[in-house]
Amino acid sequence: MDLFTRHGDLLDEDRFDDWLDLFTDDCEYLVAACENVERGLPLATIRCESKGYLKDRVVAVMTTSMYTPRSQRHVVGAPVQQDDGAWTASYAVFQTLPDEPTSVFSVGRYVASLDQNRFARLHVIYDSTLVLNSIVKPL
Amino acid sequence: MDLFTRHGDLLDEDRFDDWLDLFTDDCEYLVAACENVERGLPLATIRCESKGYLKDRVVAVMTTSMYTPRSQRHVVGAPVQQDDGAWTASYAVFQTLPDEPTSVFSVGRYVASLDQNRFARLHVIYDSTLVLNSIVKPL
Amino acid sequence: MDLFTRHGDLLDEDRFDDWLDLFTDDCEYLVAACENVERGLPLATIRCESKGYLKDRVVAVMTTSMYTPRSQRHVVGAPVQQDDGAWTASYAVFQTLPDEPTSVFSVGRYVASLDQNRFARLHVIYDSTLVLNSIVKPL
Repeated sequence: MDLFTRHGDLLDEDRFDDWLDLFTDDCEYLVAACENVERGLPLATIRCESKGYLKDRVVAVMTTSMYTPRSQRHVVGAPVQQDDGAWTASYAVFQTLPDEPTSVFSVGRYVASLDQNRFARLHVIYDSTLVLNSIVKPL
Repeated sequence: MDLFTRHGDLLDEDRFDDWLDLFTDDCEYLVAACENVERGLPLATIRCESKGYLKDRVVAVMTTSMYTPRSQRHVVGAPVQQDDGAWTASYAVFQTLPDEPTSVFSVGRYVASLDQNRFARLHVIYDSTLVLNSIVKPL
Repeated sequence: MDLFTRHGDLLDEDRFDDWLDLFTDDCEYLVAACENVERGLPLATIRCESKGYLKDRVVAVMTTSMYTPRSQRHVVGAPVQQDDGAWTASYAVFQTLPDEPTSVFSVGRYVASLDQNRFARLHVIYDSTLVLNSIVKPL
């Protein structure tokens, strides 16, 4: 169950095609604030309800021009299987902009369901209540 | 030996009862500055010498009113067994306050002895020399 | 393949002799900015082309007097084997100076080749474009 680590690595290295291969065709990929999830609110920063949507997102990332070059780096904790079968892991994503020191960009928790060693569902639940305008790449 | 990861997850999710189950009845739980440990000083930020003490601590956390809501997130490295049998792991704890960016709250090292897959001893040795006044939840 | 975690632990604990034991005699140890690696530039912040060079570096660290005491803490993600056989892992290194809060010092990626469970090659590719003047200890 090294899927979370591969997920982070592939995003950090901009290997989007390989990243897409980690998902099933009818996957659900969601990035949402912890606060909204706890309150049962359906608001999400990113919501992709199939691999096709994910692919569109990736194309948007790769072609956007309003985008200061930056690097992201994931450090992901060990995955744990919960009683309901879901896999969870803590993550920290660091961001480095040119000529600036590295900072913490986002921390939170992955919650995933697997199907034949792919993500059938990947929820990225981040701790911040700030609207992360600068989310361009998936987390 | 995924105990460190579960420990961090359960604290982050405020699942204190499940967290207490990770400890033996006569456990020793300690949070201390690296500097004091290296000098052999007995000073500790938190010291609980049994599961009963730990439980009191948890009740205090859950009932305190002088407490700005915040979220903590652990990211824990892989555990390593030392020559003396103890298990160690690096940790980073991030803190997010409402409407503020996430920051590094504490980093350091876990040192643990196990008994039947529970913590008989868990020492949290943090790197900072600052007194962490804001430690309310266990690390 | 817990070598990355041991590497970080031993550096953080200043156990340099044990750290040297993680390398083969003719090891290559390199610390370089991601930007330079991507552009194929040979510039490196640290380059040691044998265990002897590494040992010199360690002696320099231990005897330098222009060195504010500080602690470093590694948190290393799970290692992943790439198609070319190399092992990679994400890392974050945090730094704590006396009476200051902990900050992110460096994040990036380890790329390693192993020989009989030692590092024959360890490249530390860090994300920042800032010249890290304060790199004294290996990362």
